[in-house]
Amino acid sequence: MSGEKLYEGKAKVLYTTDDPDVLLTRFKDDATAFNAQKRGTIRGKGEINNAISAHLFKLMAIKGIPTHFVDLPTPTDMLVKAVTIVPLEVVVRNIAAGSLCKQTGIPLGREIKPPIVEFYLKDDNLGDPLLTLDRIRLLDVSTPAQVEQLSAMALQINHVLCEFFDQCGITLVDFKLEFGVDRQGNLILADEISPDTCRFWQQGEPDPQKRVLDKDRFRQDLGNVEGAYQQVLEKVLKQAI
Amino acid sequence: MSGEKLYEGKAKVLYTTDDPDVLLTRFKDDATAFNAQKRGTIRGKGEINNAISAHLFKLMAIKGIPTHFVDLPTPTDMLVKAVTIVPLEVVVRNIAAGSLCKQTGIPLGREIKPPIVEFYLKDDNLGDPLLTLDRIRLLDVSTPAQVEQLSAMALQINHVLCEFFDQCGITLVDFKLEFGVDRQGNLILADEISPDTCRFWQQGEPDPQKRVLDKDRFRQDLGNVEGAYQQVLEKVLKQAI
Repeated sequence: MSGEKLYEGKAKVLYTTDDPDVLLTRFKDDATAFNAQKRGTIRGKGEINNAISAHLFKLMAIKGIPTHFVDLPTPTDMLVKAVTIVPLEVVVRNIAAGSLCKQTGIPLGREIKPPIVEFYLKDDNLGDPLLTLDRIRLLDVSTPAQVEQLSAMALQINHVLCEFFDQCGITLVDFKLEFGVDRQGNLILADEISPDTCRFWQQGEPDPQKRVLDKDRFRQDLGNVEGAYQQVLEKVLKQAI
Repeated sequence: MSGEKLYEGKAKVLYTTDDPDVLLTRFKDDATAFNAQKRGTIRGKGEINNAISAHLFKLMAIKGIPTHFVDLPTPTDMLVKAVTIVPLEVVVRNIAAGSLCKQTGIPLGREIKPPIVEFYLKDDNLGDPLLTLDRIRLLDVSTPAQVEQLSAMALQINHVLCEFFDQCGITLVDFKLEFGVDRQGNLILADEISPDTCRFWQQGEPDPQKRVLDKDRFRQDLGNVEGAYQQVLEKVLKQAI
């Protein structure tokens, strides 16, 4: 099935296929945090993130948001459209958490209304720095028109995901998206949507440690990482789209 | 002359005076860098920065840019209008240097045309983080209208300073400004304009270490720090305004 290895990232490996317009993404159990300073394994993560992502990409397609999803040939593999990745991490924030709190002193859990979209340079060596619109222009990683489109798509995706996860009893705190440009020049959603790339809080759980259902369990050594990922998978798959 | 000590910063001390609308700023020889992780003394710096700042504030007044400058009662003291400081560091960049290069990988010395204005939160505990417009809004440290005005004033000041320093044979690489709101509600330029807050490169000097005439000599242990500050003072005072 899989051909030449094109790229190995922290959580996925990308292979060519017989079709030049299609690539194969293999989801790994490897987990990293703090720009790979912390490393570990989350058993079953590859399968879980692949399944959650596939489900959510299908939801996006129904809602009219184009994604790179093609098919799920095996539990850990996803066939995706070949795209040129925009070298930006597009982050949507509904509730203050993570680097926003650390960098600005805004308290964890503060609601952000309306939600904000932030751009970070996809560059591990530089630690994925926050970018202003001027810095995006100076780095020439995207055009003002594309940044506008990325921002609009990210907010639309946020709207769909918030509604979906709310029905799962999960609060979508924040998440990171990546986009690509396909051979026809269309901007489409790529990468994954999973507990590796989203912050999920169990609704109705006041304990700030118990409520965490995402990679923060791994980052902060909160325990039961696999259980949390499994719980998100079950809730997501139970929810009709 | 000086009354109650209101505030002691890294490079200046602020005192009350008999006039509630006027404060006294005493410029110190103390030097800090990297958020006060590196400390030292630059002999004569207080006098030099006071004199350079006074000269440049007078230049601003001539060009129609309001500043907090009132008078120079002693070589190390400046009388200034009492203002409420906007808790933002407003940075103008004509050439890539410092944290911009470190954070984004943009090479040192790349011309930035048109110049950009960046905002950093004035908060030593947080290491003065870079702010996006959304983060300024979330932190509620300034209004969108004030940010627009800060940006316009910073670019206007940059225009005046670039022209002035060009006549001195000095390239203005980048600089940090602080603004305050006076009792009448006017936004005016405050703080200082000196080799502590600007990057100055000697024109026609190709050696990237020799050309430095600012606090980078202290930050990077380039030697002859006092000499560089003295050189800037002499060039500035020689230039008619």
